[in-house]
Amino acid sequence: MRASGTPPTISLLTDFGTRDHYVATMKGVIAQVCPEARVIDISHEIEPYQIAQGAYLLGQAWRWFPKGTVHIAVIDPGVGSARRALAAAADGHLFVLPDNGLLALLELPQAEVHSIENESLFLRPVSNTFHGRDIFAPAAAHLACGLPLERIGPRIDDWHRAPPFESPQILHIDRFGNVVTNLRAAPGGIRIGDITVNRRATHYAEAPAGELFLIEGSAGYIEVSLRASSAAAQLNARVGQSVSVLDGR
Amino acid sequence: MRASGTPPTISLLTDFGTRDHYVATMKGVIAQVCPEARVIDISHEIEPYQIAQGAYLLGQAWRWFPKGTVHIAVIDPGVGSARRALAAAADGHLFVLPDNGLLALLELPQAEVHSIENESLFLRPVSNTFHGRDIFAPAAAHLACGLPLERIGPRIDDWHRAPPFESPQILHIDRFGNVVTNLRAAPGGIRIGDITVNRRATHYAEAPAGELFLIEGSAGYIEVSLRASSAAAQLNARVGQSVSVLDGR
Amino acid sequence: MRASGTPPTISLLTDFGTRDHYVATMKGVIAQVCPEARVIDISHEIEPYQIAQGAYLLGQAWRWFPKGTVHIAVIDPGVGSARRALAAAADGHLFVLPDNGLLALLELPQAEVHSIENESLFLRPVSNTFHGRDIFAPAAAHLACGLPLERIGPRIDDWHRAPPFESPQILHIDRFGNVVTNLRAAPGGIRIGDITVNRRATHYAEAPAGELFLIEGSAGYIEVSLRASSAAAQLNARVGQSVSVLDGR
Repeated sequence: MRASGTPPTISLLTDFGTRDHYVATMKGVIAQVCPEARVIDISHEIEPYQIAQGAYLLGQAWRWFPKGTVHIAVIDPGVGSARRALAAAADGHLFVLPDNGLLALLELPQAEVHSIENESLFLRPVSNTFHGRDIFAPAAAHLACGLPLERIGPRIDDWHRAPPFESPQILHIDRFGNVVTNLRAAPGGIRIGDITVNRRATHYAEAPAGELFLIEGSAGYIEVSLRASSAAAQLNARVGQSVSVLDGR
Repeated sequence: MRASGTPPTISLLTDFGTRDHYVATMKGVIAQVCPEARVIDISHEIEPYQIAQGAYLLGQAWRWFPKGTVHIAVIDPGVGSARRALAAAADGHLFVLPDNGLLALLELPQAEVHSIENESLFLRPVSNTFHGRDIFAPAAAHLACGLPLERIGPRIDDWHRAPPFESPQILHIDRFGNVVTNLRAAPGGIRIGDITVNRRATHYAEAPAGELFLIEGSAGYIEVSLRASSAAAQLNARVGQSVSVLDGR
Repeated sequence: MRASGTPPTISLLTDFGTRDHYVATMKGVIAQVCPEARVIDISHEIEPYQIAQGAYLLGQAWRWFPKGTVHIAVIDPGVGSARRALAAAADGHLFVLPDNGLLALLELPQAEVHSIENESLFLRPVSNTFHGRDIFAPAAAHLACGLPLERIGPRIDDWHRAPPFESPQILHIDRFGNVVTNLRAAPGGIRIGDITVNRRATHYAEAPAGELFLIEGSAGYIEVSLRASSAAAQLNARVGQSVSVLDGR
């Protein structure tokens, strides 16, 4: 699917942070398996185990990459358990990730999903704690270098299709302190902790200073913002926190 | 201007942080437009909208890159307004950035400045909020891959030449808590908040422990330091904060 | 030592952080000296001057990189003094770093160590404060592009072989707040500050919630952990802090 002349591209999203050696170790493995691949970090600052936050950020980014990019997403609270590892093709892109609902949350059109079971691709012995290094990185690197998807393992239909978190919650807090929820609409406003927000704005400029307001973000989700300040700090918000949707009467 | 055998190089400086998808999205666009370009991050930890801090860090770094490097700097409080987008050539390097004074602060010798107006290079539709993705990244990628500067848009002379911040202030706080001001001299000392600093040192080793002192940094700016500790924490300093210059009598 | 078809790879570990321009400047220099090299960050979040922490992270990562990788490690409290700069070959990898004990802590098998003295490789003038840019980056880039090790400077045997920190201490605190010590065994438990930890676990799952426990990490070091929470926060721990080993009776 990759245009000729374009080097293989791999994007990388994890909840590993950048203080430790985990991300670098995955990149070392990729450099061994597919030396010509270029790796682009999406983010490693996903809050630990926050699958919905990871899906939100990857969902915002993947369409802007070249066709043929292999997107690795490792937010994997079930590492070491029997959860499967997946490789999915959709819209000319490939996605390599654990089968924990992350793929469902991406809402990819007509995804062809395979279970990664070809152990000849893995680093041996496979650890119980670091499938990013032992399974996801080498599988993605082989795909980036041209391995056909069907060689990864069998096509499956019974992957984890139900989004893992459907209750109203905070998906993401951006650098500016804007609080992104997973709500598409909130006619009566929302409550986070013991603070109610029901003022609305369609542009940042129309909001009064110092007052929390609701705005529809570029991805269609309701966000809580505060002009020139951090809504998250005022709300004492954290990723994954529950949100109450108020009655719209 | 690029030496043969050197791949196109793009440096990237923003105030976007690394928690969000913005930087990755720009890199995805670059990978599409100029697949052979290598992207090197300068920093994404510029405090939001602190143009002078961005110019300071880019000013410290750009000369160490290969000739022909395209440096993208997106600190852009005016995004969505009528401010122009610029591409400038100086000393064999190219600079792609908003017309908000950042270029003036770089004090480039004999810059040839063009207004980026060739809409065929842009991602369409151009958003009101993310010109980094829609204008700066693709324009820079086309330049890195060899587009002549005059194809970007007309040469102009009326770019924003006045540095936007001329009052004494804090330009940058480095990892070690050294406080970099925009002052070239401060014969009578300086005051930050209600703390006066007028002790001086020419080397770190000559400063007494526990006492704030002034030292001339490698870029010629006056810095406030504290041996083996954070001057910024003791001063409760923040980037952009005003500094008072004391009478030198 | 590099496999044909593999581009030169350089890994980079420093205590410079990512707010400043230092890491980018080193990458700019590398791009000039060895344009085809790919640079992979290991971490720049080493606590300032914590040599043992740097050795721990590099020790966890380097084996996962391709043979022929040049690993630069700059944690350099002695910059500007007479300490030597080293280039070492071991197990098909190269290491470029200051002679301050970091190499000893890596415990490389049968390392061939050279003193970097070929000044024709350096950026001139060499500063007193930034050998990462002026010596380590260009030396490593020349090696990555094929300069034979013996051209770097004379082979030496009197490098700093004694690990600089041998007392029991905290090596690293990972993103999840696990506290890694430099102890291989602690039969009677350990004390950090005024908190004693002597409960043990062999798997995370067997530890009771809310109680600090000792576990052997993947590198063989004793770690202090807290299920689903930060042991470091509860201990108020910091990298480099002393640890008391309790009597095992």
